[in-house]
Amino acid sequence: MMDMKKTKVGIVGASGYSGEELVRLLLTHPHAELAAVTSRQYAGQTLAQVFPKFGNHPHAKNLRFADPNAAMLAKQAQVVFLALPHGVAAQFAVPLLQQGCQVIDLSADFRLKSAAVYKDFYAHDHPAPDLLATAVYGLPEIYRSAIKNATLIASPGCYPTSILLPILPLLRAGLVKSAGIIADSLSGVSGAGRKAELDYLFVECNESVRPYSVPRHRHLSEIEQELSLAAGTPVVIQFTPHLIPVNRGILTTLYLVPEKHFDNADEAAALSQKITACYQSAYGNEPFVRLLDGKALPDTKNVVGTNVIEIAWRLDPRTGRLIVMSAEDNIVKGASGQAVQSMNILCGFPETAGLI
Amino acid sequence: MMDMKKTKVGIVGASGYSGEELVRLLLTHPHAELAAVTSRQYAGQTLAQVFPKFGNHPHAKNLRFADPNAAMLAKQAQVVFLALPHGVAAQFAVPLLQQGCQVIDLSADFRLKSAAVYKDFYAHDHPAPDLLATAVYGLPEIYRSAIKNATLIASPGCYPTSILLPILPLLRAGLVKSAGIIADSLSGVSGAGRKAELDYLFVECNESVRPYSVPRHRHLSEIEQELSLAAGTPVVIQFTPHLIPVNRGILTTLYLVPEKHFDNADEAAALSQKITACYQSAYGNEPFVRLLDGKALPDTKNVVGTNVIEIAWRLDPRTGRLIVMSAEDNIVKGASGQAVQSMNILCGFPETAGLI
Amino acid sequence: MMDMKKTKVGIVGASGYSGEELVRLLLTHPHAELAAVTSRQYAGQTLAQVFPKFGNHPHAKNLRFADPNAAMLAKQAQVVFLALPHGVAAQFAVPLLQQGCQVIDLSADFRLKSAAVYKDFYAHDHPAPDLLATAVYGLPEIYRSAIKNATLIASPGCYPTSILLPILPLLRAGLVKSAGIIADSLSGVSGAGRKAELDYLFVECNESVRPYSVPRHRHLSEIEQELSLAAGTPVVIQFTPHLIPVNRGILTTLYLVPEKHFDNADEAAALSQKITACYQSAYGNEPFVRLLDGKALPDTKNVVGTNVIEIAWRLDPRTGRLIVMSAEDNIVKGASGQAVQSMNILCGFPETAGLI
Amino acid sequence: MMDMKKTKVGIVGASGYSGEELVRLLLTHPHAELAAVTSRQYAGQTLAQVFPKFGNHPHAKNLRFADPNAAMLAKQAQVVFLALPHGVAAQFAVPLLQQGCQVIDLSADFRLKSAAVYKDFYAHDHPAPDLLATAVYGLPEIYRSAIKNATLIASPGCYPTSILLPILPLLRAGLVKSAGIIADSLSGVSGAGRKAELDYLFVECNESVRPYSVPRHRHLSEIEQELSLAAGTPVVIQFTPHLIPVNRGILTTLYLVPEKHFDNADEAAALSQKITACYQSAYGNEPFVRLLDGKALPDTKNVVGTNVIEIAWRLDPRTGRLIVMSAEDNIVKGASGQAVQSMNILCGFPETAGLI
Repeated sequence: MMDMKKTKVGIVGASGYSGEELVRLLLTHPHAELAAVTSRQYAGQTLAQVFPKFGNHPHAKNLRFADPNAAMLAKQAQVVFLALPHGVAAQFAVPLLQQGCQVIDLSADFRLKSAAVYKDFYAHDHPAPDLLATAVYGLPEIYRSAIKNATLIASPGCYPTSILLPILPLLRAGLVKSAGIIADSLSGVSGAGRKAELDYLFVECNESVRPYSVPRHRHLSEIEQELSLAAGTPVVIQFTPHLIPVNRGILTTLYLVPEKHFDNADEAAALSQKITACYQSAYGNEPFVRLLDGKALPDTKNVVGTNVIEIAWRLDPRTGRLIVMSAEDNIVKGASGQAVQSMNILCGFPETAGLI
Repeated sequence: MMDMKKTKVGIVGASGYSGEELVRLLLTHPHAELAAVTSRQYAGQTLAQVFPKFGNHPHAKNLRFADPNAAMLAKQAQVVFLALPHGVAAQFAVPLLQQGCQVIDLSADFRLKSAAVYKDFYAHDHPAPDLLATAVYGLPEIYRSAIKNATLIASPGCYPTSILLPILPLLRAGLVKSAGIIADSLSGVSGAGRKAELDYLFVECNESVRPYSVPRHRHLSEIEQELSLAAGTPVVIQFTPHLIPVNRGILTTLYLVPEKHFDNADEAAALSQKITACYQSAYGNEPFVRLLDGKALPDTKNVVGTNVIEIAWRLDPRTGRLIVMSAEDNIVKGASGQAVQSMNILCGFPETAGLI
Repeated sequence: MMDMKKTKVGIVGASGYSGEELVRLLLTHPHAELAAVTSRQYAGQTLAQVFPKFGNHPHAKNLRFADPNAAMLAKQAQVVFLALPHGVAAQFAVPLLQQGCQVIDLSADFRLKSAAVYKDFYAHDHPAPDLLATAVYGLPEIYRSAIKNATLIASPGCYPTSILLPILPLLRAGLVKSAGIIADSLSGVSGAGRKAELDYLFVECNESVRPYSVPRHRHLSEIEQELSLAAGTPVVIQFTPHLIPVNRGILTTLYLVPEKHFDNADEAAALSQKITACYQSAYGNEPFVRLLDGKALPDTKNVVGTNVIEIAWRLDPRTGRLIVMSAEDNIVKGASGQAVQSMNILCGFPETAGLI
Repeated sequence: MMDMKKTKVGIVGASGYSGEELVRLLLTHPHAELAAVTSRQYAGQTLAQVFPKFGNHPHAKNLRFADPNAAMLAKQAQVVFLALPHGVAAQFAVPLLQQGCQVIDLSADFRLKSAAVYKDFYAHDHPAPDLLATAVYGLPEIYRSAIKNATLIASPGCYPTSILLPILPLLRAGLVKSAGIIADSLSGVSGAGRKAELDYLFVECNESVRPYSVPRHRHLSEIEQELSLAAGTPVVIQFTPHLIPVNRGILTTLYLVPEKHFDNADEAAALSQKITACYQSAYGNEPFVRLLDGKALPDTKNVVGTNVIEIAWRLDPRTGRLIVMSAEDNIVKGASGQAVQSMNILCGFPETAGLI
């Protein structure tokens, strides 16, 4: 691996929080070379000028933001990341794919199998419905082999990752009911993007905690799609996102009902063993899933800056429920790190290359 | 009211966060005079020395912390607030009551009707089980008339207040099922008290979000007691507290199931009307409950520093659930403000005196 | 005082942070009635709609924002507060004064005596230079008697207040040199106003500390004007503002050189005594200045939400300097609280009415 | 370099913030192997148990904290880092050196040349005065060649680094006066260490800004020692540290007086050119110093998590001063990163190995 020629990659929309994090990860990636970054707002400026924090990387002083142009990008890069708003991403994906690029899209544009569901949740027609069948949902722990052969990867959002990774193995193993699932999530403010809106000013977010988009957040569409696929039956869940005053991190608490009642200590012990085995089998060898044991519970501060998701669970004999909790960095495992993880798989690099 | 002689009050354990907030509220209370404050740690020092922020109040320069002594206190004050750890509070309540004081206890010692439940959740025998029958649970919106005639008020904790006020009217009106209730709560760090423990250091809490005490937090005992009384049947709930990096505030999200299904828009509208009417009837005239309408959702920053609890709700036709959200200041409505509200009722002062 | 008819007051530009704080202070003021609030952006909405936190105040449900109109305002209010950007404030001050209102302006428009200095620092011609001579600089501890008879009060900004109150008595008493003064200030983010700009997003400010406007911040103009008046000679100072991740508060550290050297313990003790006496004489009876003694140093958390400024000082025998430190709430003593304090003086109310 | 055997390193006192950061840096260092970690408190537990965040590193599951024992350590490691309180560090340095280890001490024990100055500032006799002459002050940009041949490196503290790196080149070049220097510093709370003290609780630090140790902080001793060496004359400075609510980061603002007056634009331009050349010559090729140009000013958020110090400066023609500002991560460039940088030099690794 050490001598291989580096793969050239580009980022469209590199000035938002996900884009910036892609820059960070790709500037120091051992097998990829960041060859192009685009931003309408910052066209002509170097990476170092826009992001002083990268200023010590020699490449950051030379690489300049360009106006986004698919034809140009296709010449500069083999793999292109799209860090754009939904609706806009598809406009770049189409020509880039036509010109032979591999596309890793961080928007919601290609995450859904159904253009109708897309329209229902995003309130406009899908801009490129023909591509939905080819796109691979970029959750490496679940779709690794499909990602390996993809040309278009729809990298999942932060909330879906924090909800799907803890639930999917349990649903697939038939350990929990597919009905009645509740996901209560707490997100850092970077999840709202780098947008100049009053709601996300420091003074409005600091010393504030608030729910939003209750009861129907857009990401429900992809979450329920993936849960339904795993359960083999349509799944509808309750999902409540909250905004909390941290820069980064999502903490999700999941309320699940085991398929099998556990009315006494023996049944609880048996069920515990099954859950442990299920997670161990699903994630025991995954480099970016940390299954907590003992008394440890997830804490966003233990995953911030890394591509790791922490998972812990507790059975509650009083209520008969299984509580599963996860913590991830919404911008890394919940966005750019996961996209780089997919790139690693796609390009045949070690899956952990450039990631911690 | 303006000429009435001020009632003398005392605070035992005035150096924690609840005690400090009681000091703040009582120093400027129009009908109460803060006559005694105790603290083993700070005995001999003035209020102004221990809490520089109160230094501009003339009384703060004269009033000195004393070692706690029930006999002395009973001579100095008619109403005594106990801001002590559970177990310790009862030791002061007994002699103070014997000497004719009215006691408002902010600990958990007198909140439960059953000494057995107390032992189950607090892991030691109840220190004064005989008093449990006399104590009044100090939730003014629910027990106002009993508070008026109480001698011992057990002022509820922050989590219970944030959970009970939103649910009790619905349960009493039979609008929601008593089974399957989930309370997901997010608390500011002051809820952990002013304790020198590594877990609550700035660096450990800032940029951190984490659940704790899963699945069996002590406050479940009083929450379930009060829900059971309202429902007329034993209620067991799921409760998950989380620690979030704000000084103050609790945001609780409640997942409830309406008694009556709502399968179409008409049924949803009918149910909505009933819920609106239920809350309006329960809290429409309450000075410290803010029922949000329109698109507004609770936000802790809108209640911090006040005795107000904000409540909003949404029906979710997709899941058939009712989501109710509340926000309060854990140290004011969740502790000291509520205790002062009870004092106002007990002493015949206007209920809002000294509170905003 | 208790029976006096309330004075009607209005606020122009009530939707920024200073305006919101004026609303908070005036809604509960014992002698003022908030009769009019204006905001182009929110015209037609009630106070309760725009600021849910005031929703429990009955007046907040009735009072609606109106488009700003000087003629209308002059009919509704005797005292009008202007919480507007500089340049805009003057446009309202002129007609309001003509129609007999008393105006308390929180902008920089009338703080300078010289239209030339204004132009130098604010980069446009002064919009109403004729009024500069009539305006009174609204620092009550310094200009109380002039404020009493003013028609136009130019209420000082947050940085000037935090710098002037600690220095002015020392300069007037000739205890410190007027040359070589350095003011290093740390401001909470609310000081930047409620503006939707990327620089003030939560993610850009949280976990960030940064200087700005180095070396020539606009407020230098009024600071140096007032220092020069006190010193009786032109004073030029060094001033470095920093942005720190708190909602509210300014902490200023001042580096001063005593007029008289103190080379040994006796001289230091003599100088200390003089400084103590100087501050005691200037502020010993001031309700909103807290002179710290013993080991206490200013801390913004002890003044937030109040109109108090804390001051402490230390002589450094190693360097021969006097270090003076102050803490205030930039939105209260540094803006709206100070403006209300001036109103109290102007209207003959107790100076502390409605303020803590 | 790729095939060289890794150097075995140990950390004494690995459970504080500096120790934890050393663990982070050394676990992934390409040329060092973390062979031993000690902690009285956590002896017997694995790194993964004490620091869940490192749990995904295979080594963290095997490496256990041991009770500190110099003889044992000397067998396990060639290079030993001491992350201990001052006074305690020397007790380990002596036997480790005797047994042939190279020691990198992060405490203050060996930073001063003079045992008398040590006693004056640290209030106890120096525990190993004989070693003071051998110790090298571990500021790589200044003492690189001495570090290369050192056996005992006294790695500088966070404040000194933030002050010395910006000033030393100017003093050495004779561009600024050595008298009258003022350093005003703002530090994140991790600088106080992982100590369970009330002052550093989240609630006491959040929404708080405060100076401390005014006017004589201990680190003045090493700062003035190094400034004096550079100036060739005794230097006494003013230094005011402040605590601000961020986890990490130090922002220092320095007030300097150029040797040569600049009374007009030409003189200012000439001086600017000299300062630029001075910094360029000193740091133009330094991998961890970022000289900002254009309008950029230091911001701690641009250096957090990295070993970089940002420096910018402004001449103020109004006051005749030179303002220099720096930002660094107090735990990386201000502690553990700098120590690893020294290890890299000492061991002949690339100086940037394992650091960003």
